Amino acid sequence: MISKNQIKFIRQLEQKKFRRREGLFVAEGPKVVGDLMRRFQPTAVFATPDWNHEDVPVTRVTPDELRRISFLQHPQQVLALFPLPQDAPADSSLFTIHSSLALALDGVQDPGNLGTIIRIADWFGIDTIFCSEDTADAYNPKVVQATMGSLAHVHIIYCDLTAMLDALPEGYPVYGTLLDGDDIYRQELTPEGIIVMGNEGNGISEAVRRRVNRRLLIPSFHPGDAAESLNVAVATAVTCSEFRRRF
Amino acid sequence: MISKNQIKFIRQLEQKKFRRREGLFVAEGPKVVGDLMRRFQPTAVFATPDWNHEDVPVTRVTPDELRRISFLQHPQQVLALFPLPQDAPADSSLFTIHSSLALALDGVQDPGNLGTIIRIADWFGIDTIFCSEDTADAYNPKVVQATMGSLAHVHIIYCDLTAMLDALPEGYPVYGTLLDGDDIYRQELTPEGIIVMGNEGNGISEAVRRRVNRRLLIPSFHPGDAAESLNVAVATAVTCSEFRRRF
Repeated sequence: MISKNQIKFIRQLEQKKFRRREGLFVAEGPKVVGDLMRRFQPTAVFATPDWNHEDVPVTRVTPDELRRISFLQHPQQVLALFPLPQDAPADSSLFTIHSSLALALDGVQDPGNLGTIIRIADWFGIDTIFCSEDTADAYNPKVVQATMGSLAHVHIIYCDLTAMLDALPEGYPVYGTLLDGDDIYRQELTPEGIIVMGNEGNGISEAVRRRVNRRLLIPSFHPGDAAESLNVAVATAVTCSEFRRRF
Repeated sequence: MISKNQIKFIRQLEQKKFRRREGLFVAEGPKVVGDLMRRFQPTAVFATPDWNHEDVPVTRVTPDELRRISFLQHPQQVLALFPLPQDAPADSSLFTIHSSLALALDGVQDPGNLGTIIRIADWFGIDTIFCSEDTADAYNPKVVQATMGSLAHVHIIYCDLTAMLDALPEGYPVYGTLLDGDDIYRQELTPEGIIVMGNEGNGISEAVRRRVNRRLLIPSFHPGDAAESLNVAVATAVTCSEFRRRF
């Protein structure tokens, strides 16, 4: 049983300002909810009778009630509310990134792309993603679903990217894929560094580009008039793959 | 000016059976229409006054009329009808694939994934994609838009994949990414071959899997409980990148 007020409350969590105010985000389906429960304690779980999980109090709902709170076209058994992770201040994270790879997203707009990138980071063992404030919100229901549970493993830190990059030690490798970069397959790569990926239409912003000190290019193999660009998630995958292949 | 009958006709091209019957597909926006016009001659072009192109007869429409025929949330200046390419019979293509890389899609369902894969193929210089009959239709308006014009460069051939694979010369390399495959970064690859990618949920079908003679695995670098899978388009990109890096 679920009240009208609860339905309204949950539906409003589609909006970022409401998620921020309430400190909550929505996840759905046995796979995503189950994965997130390994890292986060849900504050509320709404599930049809076919979803069973020990150790967590559940509000039972009918399939029709689930449809009314769900953000999915095809609701899947369970919808849970999780506490929004407190963003660690960007500075405190610098300690851990010194010896590993991290991603920095500069204005990635599409929720599907962001979700796919979080999933790619998880696959390639990258546990920190810095996001510019104008990057899509990782706790948007569409992004949460697109991550397929990878939000449980990857730390997302929203911050001023230029300030974050300026706080890095002198010469710390900052990679970016740029049209005038060097062939990624032939360039020297390092086991640690930050890989910057840019906006779908405009690429990396001018201010961030000035802080990229290793310019990469994924070469096109198309003869003649080529495909003009790779999707940003695809470019992220190719780049992460090339780093991980070597280290 | 556009008639009610024309609007109805165009809207029906969302359906595959109607596209097949009429031998037409829809493309939208200056970028996609412009790229496709390099390969195909449009049979009809509907455009607002801000779209200009020499050499092609245009039916001028108002922004409101364009909205009524468009499949996009934000219609973009132009919608064109193109003749559906005649599928070359799979056999006749075998000649050209002997000395190159081709993709084979076994039940890829999501139009966005298919569109992204066509764009990836274009980027990595793969000009032929074989699709099983249960793969999404490449001329679905959603796929056409997701290809960003790459449909102009890549040949899509729907066929019985098992028959196509059986018709290959003995020992011709057929690659597939499988859970029990060998690390793609360490395995020997060949400059020619067919790379099979499977369905989003179930992977490569049993019948096709039996015809894969080189099993690949994209290793996960996640410590412990990893992301369980890569999106099929992402896996395609990583695989194509690794082939092209070497040859």
